[in-house]
Amino acid sequence: MTKVLDHGYIRHVESWGRGDAGVPEAGIIEAARQSTQGSFRGWAQDAKLLAYLFNSKPQHATPFEFAGMVIEVQAPILVFREWQRHRTQSYNEMSARYSPLPDLNYIPSVERLMGDAGSTNRQAQALTGTMPMTVERAEWFRAKLARTYAEAEDTYQQALAEGVAKELARCCIPVGRYSRMRASTSLRNWCAFLTLRNDPKAQWEIRQYAAALADIMRAEFPQVMQLFDAR
Amino acid sequence: MTKVLDHGYIRHVESWGRGDAGVPEAGIIEAARQSTQGSFRGWAQDAKLLAYLFNSKPQHATPFEFAGMVIEVQAPILVFREWQRHRTQSYNEMSARYSPLPDLNYIPSVERLMGDAGSTNRQAQALTGTMPMTVERAEWFRAKLARTYAEAEDTYQQALAEGVAKELARCCIPVGRYSRMRASTSLRNWCAFLTLRNDPKAQWEIRQYAAALADIMRAEFPQVMQLFDAR
Amino acid sequence: MTKVLDHGYIRHVESWGRGDAGVPEAGIIEAARQSTQGSFRGWAQDAKLLAYLFNSKPQHATPFEFAGMVIEVQAPILVFREWQRHRTQSYNEMSARYSPLPDLNYIPSVERLMGDAGSTNRQAQALTGTMPMTVERAEWFRAKLARTYAEAEDTYQQALAEGVAKELARCCIPVGRYSRMRASTSLRNWCAFLTLRNDPKAQWEIRQYAAALADIMRAEFPQVMQLFDAR
Amino acid sequence: MTKVLDHGYIRHVESWGRGDAGVPEAGIIEAARQSTQGSFRGWAQDAKLLAYLFNSKPQHATPFEFAGMVIEVQAPILVFREWQRHRTQSYNEMSARYSPLPDLNYIPSVERLMGDAGSTNRQAQALTGTMPMTVERAEWFRAKLARTYAEAEDTYQQALAEGVAKELARCCIPVGRYSRMRASTSLRNWCAFLTLRNDPKAQWEIRQYAAALADIMRAEFPQVMQLFDAR
Repeated sequence: MTKVLDHGYIRHVESWGRGDAGVPEAGIIEAARQSTQGSFRGWAQDAKLLAYLFNSKPQHATPFEFAGMVIEVQAPILVFREWQRHRTQSYNEMSARYSPLPDLNYIPSVERLMGDAGSTNRQAQALTGTMPMTVERAEWFRAKLARTYAEAEDTYQQALAEGVAKELARCCIPVGRYSRMRASTSLRNWCAFLTLRNDPKAQWEIRQYAAALADIMRAEFPQVMQLFDAR
Repeated sequence: MTKVLDHGYIRHVESWGRGDAGVPEAGIIEAARQSTQGSFRGWAQDAKLLAYLFNSKPQHATPFEFAGMVIEVQAPILVFREWQRHRTQSYNEMSARYSPLPDLNYIPSVERLMGDAGSTNRQAQALTGTMPMTVERAEWFRAKLARTYAEAEDTYQQALAEGVAKELARCCIPVGRYSRMRASTSLRNWCAFLTLRNDPKAQWEIRQYAAALADIMRAEFPQVMQLFDAR
Repeated sequence: MTKVLDHGYIRHVESWGRGDAGVPEAGIIEAARQSTQGSFRGWAQDAKLLAYLFNSKPQHATPFEFAGMVIEVQAPILVFREWQRHRTQSYNEMSARYSPLPDLNYIPSVERLMGDAGSTNRQAQALTGTMPMTVERAEWFRAKLARTYAEAEDTYQQALAEGVAKELARCCIPVGRYSRMRASTSLRNWCAFLTLRNDPKAQWEIRQYAAALADIMRAEFPQVMQLFDAR
Repeated sequence: MTKVLDHGYIRHVESWGRGDAGVPEAGIIEAARQSTQGSFRGWAQDAKLLAYLFNSKPQHATPFEFAGMVIEVQAPILVFREWQRHRTQSYNEMSARYSPLPDLNYIPSVERLMGDAGSTNRQAQALTGTMPMTVERAEWFRAKLARTYAEAEDTYQQALAEGVAKELARCCIPVGRYSRMRASTSLRNWCAFLTLRNDPKAQWEIRQYAAALADIMRAEFPQVMQLFDAR
């Protein structure tokens, strides 16, 4: 389990793609050999075939659908709102319709508030005409945000106690609240996720999850990730 | 434009599927005839063919991918969280990373709070052991929720004014806040959406959108919707 | 490996969905519990939860995306043409662009030719006005088909020997020729495949593959398949 | 209608994406503005916004899902086998289960047989050790292929006349036989199709269809295609 942000994590559950040979990328190579039937001369070694598939332009992408991974993630709702726009993944998320959400909320660090975390995405930054951030105002925002979270939680708990339906009591929950889900997809689509979410234009928060995910992928699929990282 | 809930709406933007004949369902029928090449005797009339395709078990579903619709929706974030789990639709939603969200928030009516709106979904209701809802407590919740919304908005506006990045200032926004998006998919997938979201187990709020959507579909694709409603 | 038709087979390569508990359907149950967080009272046993998810209307389908299976299939091209219309599966098929296809061709049995194999699909049967099939004419067709296959193979081999590009020499290959592929998808989508291809309206040939696949699924995911078979 | 190969064609049926403004790319721009709410300063003109969306890395791809096109194609089965591997398109193809296929078959030209049509795909070419193609041998192949097609058609017609089920009589049909389908998808996915099928590594035959499709797209969506062509 890798800790991410102040209360989040990402955790590997299961991988597949070991094929008949039982090694990490065997399923990918065996699927690819299905297409080529050994017609590509000189590919004595699996590594060469894998590199050819991954690096050819356009990529031979379908063999990378023959491996995959299930993970569990705890992240703020605002991160899940971006994550779940990826329509090739499978999701099961805890539901506030069914069960009260635990009181965990994301408070950005002073460092994050000061620096915009190196994002190159101008649109996501402060409104034009505002002053550059200072440590004092960053601390002020953290305290103010914490109070707003506490007030929302107070409303939520009172509403539940007063018999408001769970699916309605949740209206006041802020998008900084943590939720949890399992996600599953193929290695092809995990790579696509990294490409989009480990990008400097992506929000810094989801990039922390993408970076932690990449580490898990490096452990699970070392050969493919070596090719991915070398791109 | 159809009003939904207290500040939401759903609005038709564009349809397709008129095919060469230019009538609402022509594209579906022409696509189906592509497969059958007139081999199904006795289908002198388009209506008969359409009914056969729609009602056969399993359904001949692919012709219904040859028509579709773009809509615009304004709905609370909690509704969009359910809606966007449908992975066969295309979405473009306004982004609080780029632009401050307008201060529109969903407050359930007393009637809705009292009755659980006829939902058969026990899990989504009040916590066990709580008292049945009364008008007084419903009114109390509405007032309490309004204050929580106002406090969140206050934090949000102050944060923006103090130079906090838009993508971080939004942490305090509650999931009852309205957002807006365009959504597009084929008639096959709009029907699947209705089946899941116009169901008594679905949350009452998204069912109001599904009902409004069904009305739009009845105007745009009358023959298909007659079959859908007769199921 | 299960033999199907005269030269085909279907073979299990790999399954996933064992989750943390390591038993066949653990991944499905753990994903579902992610959503419900134990809120569904009375589900002391996993089997009860699984049955609820599978049988509720509409189905709670997403947990069944957290298990899956890779298989290898050898089947006539005409079967693959139907199979690959399922767009939620991943495929890698041997390619006649890259490698000459082995000379294996499907010849329907006399029994199959005589009986239309119990298909309820009138459109797929003999042209109107033709005589009922006899054993003699069934044998005649088998012999005629075998000669046509042999002539096609002769053209193919001569063309390859004369230096015609593999991707063009293949023009003469009949759709009764066997090809081979790997296919991968989630349990949800394998069930959808069975529903459509184990149906009396589906062509008898692909139904043989669907039946063999169902047997593999029964061995790999016994609890889910018990629910599937009981529907 | 654009003629492709010896008996094929591609034909535009219908487009969408005109949005409220009714001009070709209005739907794309309106969907994009939904996300940005005018936050991108300096984009006074639609053309600038469109270029930014299309050319940014990674691409802002979802607005291009708000326009699309239905086409009708007649092509050899071997081309459809490659085409239908694109899983984001909708298809309805004529079915030899339901209706005898017309006797139209693809015979490559001498020029095509001689030159490998400039393909850079070595694997798809002639077997190693064979002689370079000559006009004489190209003509020989064309004649031989025509005879093989005629023999297959003869078997097919006799089988149909003798009462063999249509779905079985078709076993002898070669993959060079023409079939016909309608296909529909969004502009985003049509562009992805062009990228893969207008590539020098793709088979020359499908590249002819991709080129004809690109021309249709240039007429229907001139601004987007100008950006596509400039990449």
